[in-house]
Amino acid sequence: MNSFGIVFRVTIFGESHGPAIGVIIDGCPPGIAVKTDDFIPDLKRRQSGSRGTTRRQEPDLPEILSGVFDGVTTGAPVALITKNSDKISSDYDEFKNIPRPGHADFVSNVKHSGFSDMRGSGHFSGRITWGLVAAGVLAKKINGSTDINAKLISAGGSADIEKAINDAIASNDTIGGIIECRIKKPSLAIGEPFFYSFESAVSHMIFSIPAIKGIEFGRGFAAAAMKGSEHNDPFINNNGKTATNNAGGINGGITNGNEIIFRIVVKPTSSTGVDQTTLNFKTSEMTTLRVKGRHDTCIALRMPVIVEAATAIAMADLILIDRGIHGER
Amino acid sequence: MNSFGIVFRVTIFGESHGPAIGVIIDGCPPGIAVKTDDFIPDLKRRQSGSRGTTRRQEPDLPEILSGVFDGVTTGAPVALITKNSDKISSDYDEFKNIPRPGHADFVSNVKHSGFSDMRGSGHFSGRITWGLVAAGVLAKKINGSTDINAKLISAGGSADIEKAINDAIASNDTIGGIIECRIKKPSLAIGEPFFYSFESAVSHMIFSIPAIKGIEFGRGFAAAAMKGSEHNDPFINNNGKTATNNAGGINGGITNGNEIIFRIVVKPTSSTGVDQTTLNFKTSEMTTLRVKGRHDTCIALRMPVIVEAATAIAMADLILIDRGIHGER
Amino acid sequence: MNSFGIVFRVTIFGESHGPAIGVIIDGCPPGIAVKTDDFIPDLKRRQSGSRGTTRRQEPDLPEILSGVFDGVTTGAPVALITKNSDKISSDYDEFKNIPRPGHADFVSNVKHSGFSDMRGSGHFSGRITWGLVAAGVLAKKINGSTDINAKLISAGGSADIEKAINDAIASNDTIGGIIECRIKKPSLAIGEPFFYSFESAVSHMIFSIPAIKGIEFGRGFAAAAMKGSEHNDPFINNNGKTATNNAGGINGGITNGNEIIFRIVVKPTSSTGVDQTTLNFKTSEMTTLRVKGRHDTCIALRMPVIVEAATAIAMADLILIDRGIHGER
Amino acid sequence: MNSFGIVFRVTIFGESHGPAIGVIIDGCPPGIAVKTDDFIPDLKRRQSGSRGTTRRQEPDLPEILSGVFDGVTTGAPVALITKNSDKISSDYDEFKNIPRPGHADFVSNVKHSGFSDMRGSGHFSGRITWGLVAAGVLAKKINGSTDINAKLISAGGSADIEKAINDAIASNDTIGGIIECRIKKPSLAIGEPFFYSFESAVSHMIFSIPAIKGIEFGRGFAAAAMKGSEHNDPFINNNGKTATNNAGGINGGITNGNEIIFRIVVKPTSSTGVDQTTLNFKTSEMTTLRVKGRHDTCIALRMPVIVEAATAIAMADLILIDRGIHGER
Repeated sequence: MNSFGIVFRVTIFGESHGPAIGVIIDGCPPGIAVKTDDFIPDLKRRQSGSRGTTRRQEPDLPEILSGVFDGVTTGAPVALITKNSDKISSDYDEFKNIPRPGHADFVSNVKHSGFSDMRGSGHFSGRITWGLVAAGVLAKKINGSTDINAKLISAGGSADIEKAINDAIASNDTIGGIIECRIKKPSLAIGEPFFYSFESAVSHMIFSIPAIKGIEFGRGFAAAAMKGSEHNDPFINNNGKTATNNAGGINGGITNGNEIIFRIVVKPTSSTGVDQTTLNFKTSEMTTLRVKGRHDTCIALRMPVIVEAATAIAMADLILIDRGIHGER
Repeated sequence: MNSFGIVFRVTIFGESHGPAIGVIIDGCPPGIAVKTDDFIPDLKRRQSGSRGTTRRQEPDLPEILSGVFDGVTTGAPVALITKNSDKISSDYDEFKNIPRPGHADFVSNVKHSGFSDMRGSGHFSGRITWGLVAAGVLAKKINGSTDINAKLISAGGSADIEKAINDAIASNDTIGGIIECRIKKPSLAIGEPFFYSFESAVSHMIFSIPAIKGIEFGRGFAAAAMKGSEHNDPFINNNGKTATNNAGGINGGITNGNEIIFRIVVKPTSSTGVDQTTLNFKTSEMTTLRVKGRHDTCIALRMPVIVEAATAIAMADLILIDRGIHGER
Repeated sequence: MNSFGIVFRVTIFGESHGPAIGVIIDGCPPGIAVKTDDFIPDLKRRQSGSRGTTRRQEPDLPEILSGVFDGVTTGAPVALITKNSDKISSDYDEFKNIPRPGHADFVSNVKHSGFSDMRGSGHFSGRITWGLVAAGVLAKKINGSTDINAKLISAGGSADIEKAINDAIASNDTIGGIIECRIKKPSLAIGEPFFYSFESAVSHMIFSIPAIKGIEFGRGFAAAAMKGSEHNDPFINNNGKTATNNAGGINGGITNGNEIIFRIVVKPTSSTGVDQTTLNFKTSEMTTLRVKGRHDTCIALRMPVIVEAATAIAMADLILIDRGIHGER
Repeated sequence: MNSFGIVFRVTIFGESHGPAIGVIIDGCPPGIAVKTDDFIPDLKRRQSGSRGTTRRQEPDLPEILSGVFDGVTTGAPVALITKNSDKISSDYDEFKNIPRPGHADFVSNVKHSGFSDMRGSGHFSGRITWGLVAAGVLAKKINGSTDINAKLISAGGSADIEKAINDAIASNDTIGGIIECRIKKPSLAIGEPFFYSFESAVSHMIFSIPAIKGIEFGRGFAAAAMKGSEHNDPFINNNGKTATNNAGGINGGITNGNEIIFRIVVKPTSSTGVDQTTLNFKTSEMTTLRVKGRHDTCIALRMPVIVEAATAIAMADLILIDRGIHGER
């Protein structure tokens, strides 16, 4: 089930150490100006390199294989790929016998009856999110003047992100983080009752991203401790602007035109440098696992652009569905 | 978009004050024993009546219109309906002019160009979850010996739920709550990479339920403050049992056979008895709104069975997809 | 897989001798005027009663359960049902042992592991097309001024339909027929490359109708004997009008604005009054089967309105998809 | 809508003169042995070169980008591409002004608001069927011992295919043809009521192939002139074998285990060498069009392998859906 979307459809493929990874974007309206360079800024944001992120270096430049001609989308599916170049597969040989805690090694092996490509986590690698980010660049264009902005607001439980990462590096361990996404000037009245609410579409996409363990909209979990009279957002003008925004811009699963706000939690990177005691499935005995390879201290650092892309894709689909059923607003 | 599921498909219809509400369950395997009485326990759990819930009384008995013959499913779609009987529509006449804060009145009117049936929140009513619960009864049977159990673990921010509700009733206000769902003996290796992870499927369904504002799996938001070496769950036997269960039974979007754990937050009921100052869209002036009608002090009280149903439906779909691609395990 | 459509979605349920049959129409734009009486003319056309059709009499009046309020669609799913009243189930008891040639008895039993409701062919009954016709009434409204017109152009191989039917009745046998569907003023440029061409969408729907064994567009099978220079339709004005219309109004899977023309073949009714020698699966011996019950001499007589409905549904979906991706034309 | 399939999903992309064309195959079971060479025989059959086919020469070798590791499918999506090398785009410059009769030039321009890539018919090119054939190779493996065999049975209305093609070449014109597909040892009981009948799935796929104008199953259009007592196929053994096979192996939309037979018609190639009088949309005057470029005298010659692939894909999806709902048979 490597496709998402009903009208605007994104299909992902590739493995960490295969020849190439990529994405197909179907249902993309014709006439959208796009060139290879447009993908660079978001792809760079996703890349490794900053302190606390993996030292794997990939140029990650996209090749446009189809769907774009003379600098605009044609209406045919847009195919984008990038070659995998910086691969060191020998790191991963033992993970069939000793599945890494927190990783998909065990489940992937069971699910695919031992036929999974385990090199670099294969299709379960965070590298596959390259396609999400690339598709997100087009999806953002469909969202027009809507501004989708995600940022890391805490790491390792602290708002002092730099210090938290330095501490984690010092202890050879990894940490998680919380990302907040704010969407200004969203399309009004997108989201479909019953089963394709705004939150359903966005959470479906967001939980496709590896390492995400929770999402909350508006006040989220804090809403449980509020009174209805506090949590309700009274309307103050005919555009639907509300005095407060505890709902995070959504009522009944449909955008009400106010800023959309949600937060997600990213678990600490599973590939920690600390030794772990876990099972050797071959010998059925416990063993000490030291994970080698190149990994992120805090994968959450690279997540904001992925979260934006996932959100933009879900919203693009909701926009095209809404326009199909209701016409231009 | 009133359908959910790829192989096991649930379609919801109906409005709060229309003649009937219902659900179609397609892709249901033949040969499952089911009779009208099987639906009663879960439908009763969903019903109003206990302290803190609405006084609207509906018998809510299901009529099986199709798909069941001689006490077993036939393989044809199962259609279930129930009549709406206890309707007092006069309560809702003014909500086009003065959309209720926290409700879908405003967005529904915009989205559907003023043609929405606003009586009792129409298709946005919590009443529509009757169909979810009914479909959930069948979905639970497809889940076999898996035990899906949701319960309210706090209300209004307090673990003393009864007191919290009494306080809310006393102040004529409403409160939210947090529900925890635990799934014992889940099917192993369900969940599809990339876009139909276990969390994607379940969160998609869960956010279809009105009033839900967040979901977290395993340690959820608390994971952000953990180290990787703490959060990782080491394996301890060949069935994939782990020493800890911080991941809540899921790795890489796929069930690892351990208990599945997630929590959701339910916002306080929007229909509070406290006066609210909000816009009259007709006069463009602020006004005081007093919401009449019969409503729940704490809608979260009725939610556990709905959460179980939503979860069972998502899991049934994942089970049938997995069996389709991989055969019997 | 009892649903069709990507944005405009039709879900069918029911069995010939169950309590009721019905249809859910989702993705239906709000604001379409519709009342119960609007369904009567097409439902009457589908009904039995004329010479050569079954004597089963059903009032077939629709109940609107949801999605319509104050005489217009609301944007919520439209649910329509009709009760089954004129049921004589004793006719069908023996068909598990002696599956009727030409019917679905054998395959239905195998597919559903013996759990099928065999009464009146159950979910495989032509009666289930009631829901198609009902949904078609709404779909035609979405098609606006487009005129979809199907008619029987031959029966039993003869253009003298009345005589062919009289002959068949006289021999206690059944006959098939050919139906031509012509669509005037179709929406321009509907049909989606690659996999949802106009012909793909329409044929998918048409072959859902029981008893249909072929479809051809424009010149159809006769095109094989034409030269390219004869078959090509030259353009003669800027609206895309062509001098000839061998393509039947479709180029590259997309409507070109000219009249759409296709023909389908309906096989002779399987329930013939003539004795048939076939296997008794219980005894594994050949036996003589005399099919009792009430059946159509020429089911094709009742088909035109079903073909129109199926076509209108497919076209409504294509229209809403096209508007979603491309905006209003 | 460049994807087909519910569980086994095929997504096509590319244009005739773009950098590459390709296909993604998702929902492919793991553990299927496949290597690049396995694709060569069917891709060769699709290729040009024989008398009466275009002189465009492409090596057409597939690159496997993902989903295959150590010579077997992994369960992750299989991505296959091939580079376009032999491109002469100057041939196609004028077709925006003078859309070629029989081609998609006019509709593609309208649908995509003038943004289509018109070079070599762009995404509407028959070249895009490369991906179908490649996906068909995998789909055939999923069909196991089932033998899907399509062949051209007539061209230009004659069973003497070679003579018909020689005559067409001599007159500088093009001809169509009829292809028959026979499927021996098909899976029993595949095809889903109501909307995903065997014929619905197969015709949906078949009409995705450019130039196809009709399909008929079993006796097809000839059935209209038969009596029910002639057309019905009596059963003769407990496996469902029938004495005759007028139904072409399908009852009620479900395979009955007998040989499946259907025929399709391919229109004459639209790019005829004969001059055509058609509209110049720029000048609004009629003009004489001489189509240059390299084209097939009889495109039907290359179609059998495409028809087999389309059929195998539809059947693979039906097989996986059936196994999901009903388990292993």
